[in-house]
Amino acid sequence: MPRLITAFSNPLVKRVRSLREKKGRRTERLFLAEGLRILAEAEEAGRLPVYIFFAADSAGHPIVRRLVARVEAAGGEAIETDRDILHKLSGKDNPQAVVGVYEEFATDLAAIDRTSAGLWIVAQSLRDPGNLGTILRTGDATGAGGLILVDDCVDPFSVEAVRASMGALFTQRIALARWPDFVDWLRAGPGELVGTSLKATDDYQAPRYTPPLFLLVGNEAQGLPAEYEAECDRLVKMPMLGKADSLNAAVATAVMAYEVINQWRRAT
Amino acid sequence: MPRLITAFSNPLVKRVRSLREKKGRRTERLFLAEGLRILAEAEEAGRLPVYIFFAADSAGHPIVRRLVARVEAAGGEAIETDRDILHKLSGKDNPQAVVGVYEEFATDLAAIDRTSAGLWIVAQSLRDPGNLGTILRTGDATGAGGLILVDDCVDPFSVEAVRASMGALFTQRIALARWPDFVDWLRAGPGELVGTSLKATDDYQAPRYTPPLFLLVGNEAQGLPAEYEAECDRLVKMPMLGKADSLNAAVATAVMAYEVINQWRRAT
Repeated sequence: MPRLITAFSNPLVKRVRSLREKKGRRTERLFLAEGLRILAEAEEAGRLPVYIFFAADSAGHPIVRRLVARVEAAGGEAIETDRDILHKLSGKDNPQAVVGVYEEFATDLAAIDRTSAGLWIVAQSLRDPGNLGTILRTGDATGAGGLILVDDCVDPFSVEAVRASMGALFTQRIALARWPDFVDWLRAGPGELVGTSLKATDDYQAPRYTPPLFLLVGNEAQGLPAEYEAECDRLVKMPMLGKADSLNAAVATAVMAYEVINQWRRAT
Repeated sequence: MPRLITAFSNPLVKRVRSLREKKGRRTERLFLAEGLRILAEAEEAGRLPVYIFFAADSAGHPIVRRLVARVEAAGGEAIETDRDILHKLSGKDNPQAVVGVYEEFATDLAAIDRTSAGLWIVAQSLRDPGNLGTILRTGDATGAGGLILVDDCVDPFSVEAVRASMGALFTQRIALARWPDFVDWLRAGPGELVGTSLKATDDYQAPRYTPPLFLLVGNEAQGLPAEYEAECDRLVKMPMLGKADSLNAAVATAVMAYEVINQWRRAT
């Protein structure tokens, strides 16, 4: 039976509100996802929120009803509320009708089974939550196993990253690691590390890529540090026909990832 | 000789500040670009600002000196100021050392010479300025002629779009058009209209694309309206191997654009 909350001062509202900041997420080990589409995607991936907030005027929506029932059956809590509270939780002028609060996932590199997928994306010092979410979405579309975040990346559980991932956060494995630990882990098993670099001489369509393939993408402004490039088994570049000399990091990742899976689907 | 401005109440500061809003840009027919990299990119593309604001502590930077000299030689005005004013102009906590104020470009479809490039990108009701800027950047990298914005797209001269374009706004032609006018213009000359759609049956790598090719991308949330898809000469789809069923609009554009130019560079 959903609880009704309409007071801004409610302690749960305050607690959930704190999840918009990294500090709150680290304290609570919880994060926010908004909107029916993303909550349904999470459900399909086997993830239910521990709390689900929904607007009273959407209580009759069949997906809302199903989610509420499943959350309650799983021991979570459903909270009926109003648009003002949802606005406060989401920070958006035009809030989604539902907000879910999820437990953070484990992000240990050691828990990743590299044989479970042919392609893995590795991002270094990625700063933009939109790029991070977009890369997760591309990872889902290209059948990647997950995203390994190296060094100081933006928080994958931030509201903006979850939103940009359009639910792919729930279908992709996520690991956080320092570079030396990632390299140790990588070299302890099979796999090729492929980086993109403006300094590379090989065209990105020239190599025959083989799984497991680890696609390394660098920071938006700086690209990859020289020593990270030196660690790569291959450095490749995409053609740049214009006056500018780079692509958006999420775009470069996607162009590379599609080249890899296009090769693999031609081979079968 | 640069003018010195350090007062928030200065009328020029107020006027330039207004360019952060669409209303101000439409009134003044001017827009903002920030940062040495983007201003240098604009200069290389033959565009100088009518006003250039720079922080006193960066007055000695060789690119700043060159830009200031060229702006003044061209009849523009250079303004030395401080970080507080630059913060006020850019709205960023950590403002760039230079801000340029540029005249808006003509955006008439009739002014576009379709034979000047093989690839043109057409976006319909694009809402996100980051996506718009990223698509401009991809257009530059893939040698596209420009971006045709159909229906109600986000303003390409918005601060966020200019920023995300990383200077490609200055190298790409931009046109704004209503859909019926675009279709009339398109059909009055050579060119194939290719849309991406989840409903398509053709794989995006199957057709042999020929220039001039017009790549049509739909709104981030809705995709293309059915009647717009019906107008396309081809509808194609990218493989989707995951649980989600779509890519970010800027990512899908880039994956398509690279397929097109990859075909063309193999053919030469």
